[in-house]
Amino acid sequence: MKIPDISIARLSVYARTLVELLEQGIETVSSRQLAEKIGVTSDKVRKDLSYFGQFGHRGIGYDVETLHNSITRILGLNRPWNIAICGAGNLGSALFTYQGFVKQGFKIVAVFDNNPKKIGTRWGRIEVTDSRKIPSTIKAKKIEIVIIAVPANAAQSISDEFISAGVKAILNFAPVKLSVPTSVKLRDVDLSTEIVNLTHFLSHK
Amino acid sequence: MKIPDISIARLSVYARTLVELLEQGIETVSSRQLAEKIGVTSDKVRKDLSYFGQFGHRGIGYDVETLHNSITRILGLNRPWNIAICGAGNLGSALFTYQGFVKQGFKIVAVFDNNPKKIGTRWGRIEVTDSRKIPSTIKAKKIEIVIIAVPANAAQSISDEFISAGVKAILNFAPVKLSVPTSVKLRDVDLSTEIVNLTHFLSHK
Repeated sequence: MKIPDISIARLSVYARTLVELLEQGIETVSSRQLAEKIGVTSDKVRKDLSYFGQFGHRGIGYDVETLHNSITRILGLNRPWNIAICGAGNLGSALFTYQGFVKQGFKIVAVFDNNPKKIGTRWGRIEVTDSRKIPSTIKAKKIEIVIIAVPANAAQSISDEFISAGVKAILNFAPVKLSVPTSVKLRDVDLSTEIVNLTHFLSHK
Repeated sequence: MKIPDISIARLSVYARTLVELLEQGIETVSSRQLAEKIGVTSDKVRKDLSYFGQFGHRGIGYDVETLHNSITRILGLNRPWNIAICGAGNLGSALFTYQGFVKQGFKIVAVFDNNPKKIGTRWGRIEVTDSRKIPSTIKAKKIEIVIIAVPANAAQSISDEFISAGVKAILNFAPVKLSVPTSVKLRDVDLSTEIVNLTHFLSHK
C-alpha cells in the first residue's frame, strides 16, 4: 500500500494523540475530536485513516486502543528500531539526546565519527565508534536506520558506506542532495525550508 | 494569497535549483527539466508556479532569472532576516553553525540562554544573551524569527515571552505542542516524524 509521506507524518501525530487519550482513560474518539486536537480538518482525518481500512462507527467514533494499535503497526512502531548517528559533532550530539526520539522509543545504539579525538569517547551508555568499523558495527548491532549528521562534503561517501553495509533507510541532515539506490529510503531534513515558511508568512501578512 | 506550506517548501527547493542553473549560465528551463532535477512531476511544478501567476512559454520554458526573482520575492528571500536561537545547548549550537542556513542567507544575530555558565560566552561574532534580556534584545537587533531549542518543559513559557516582545514567527524544535495566537506563525519541527517515514518503509518493503 502506497501512503503519501505527508499522511504518514500525520499518522504519527495521531498515534501520539491517541496515547494521550489512552492515558486520560478515554476509550472512543470521533474524527472531529481527533481533527481538533491535531489542527487539521475531519475530512483529512477520515481520508488518512481510510488508507488502511479503519472506519469509525457513525455516532460512536473510533475505538482509541484499536486505532492506536493499527496505526503503530502500520508505521512499524510496534517494535524497537536500532538507529545509528553518523557524525559526533554538535548536531549528532543534539540528536543523541533529542527528547522526541526517546518519547517515541527509538534507540540510538551507535555513533560514528572519523576524528581520533572523538573516537572512544563515552556518550551515555555507548562509545563513539571509528567510521572504519561501519560494516562490522552495522551487523553486530543490527542497525537498520542511519542518521547522517556530517558536513555536506562528507555526506555522499559516508552514505555509500552505510548502504554497502546493508542499511536501507537514511535520514539526511547534511544540506546536500544525496544519491541512493531505489531500494533505499532517503529522507532529507532541510531546516532552511522550515524557515522559508516563516519568511513567506512574514512577507505577506 | 494562501499557498499551502508544502508548496512553499517546494518553492524554496526550486529557488535553490534555479540558482544552480544561473551559476551554470543556463537562461531558460522547462517545467519538465525543473521537475526532473527536483524529483517531482512536471504537473506539480506547473501547479506550484501557477499559485503566483508564473507561466512558462510553450516550447521555450521559464526564464531562469525572472522565475528565480519571482520565487525569492514571494518567499520573502529577497531581503535578509534576523533570527534568534533560544537555547544554547547542543541543538542550539548545531543550528548556529548549520550550513544550510548560511547557504540560504539567514543571519543568526542572537542566542539566548538562562544558564549563568553559558551567558556571556562567545559564539563566533556574538555572545550568549541572558534570557531576561529578551524584550530589549528583540527590539535592538530587529529580530523577527525565533528558533526554540530548549527542553520541552520550558518551551511554552519562553515562546510566550518572545510573542510578548513582538515576535511573529517561531520555529519550534521542542517535542511539545505550543499554543500561540493566530497572528503568530508557528512551525513545529518533529524529527521523530521524519524517522517514522523510514520505519513505515522498512516495515512494508
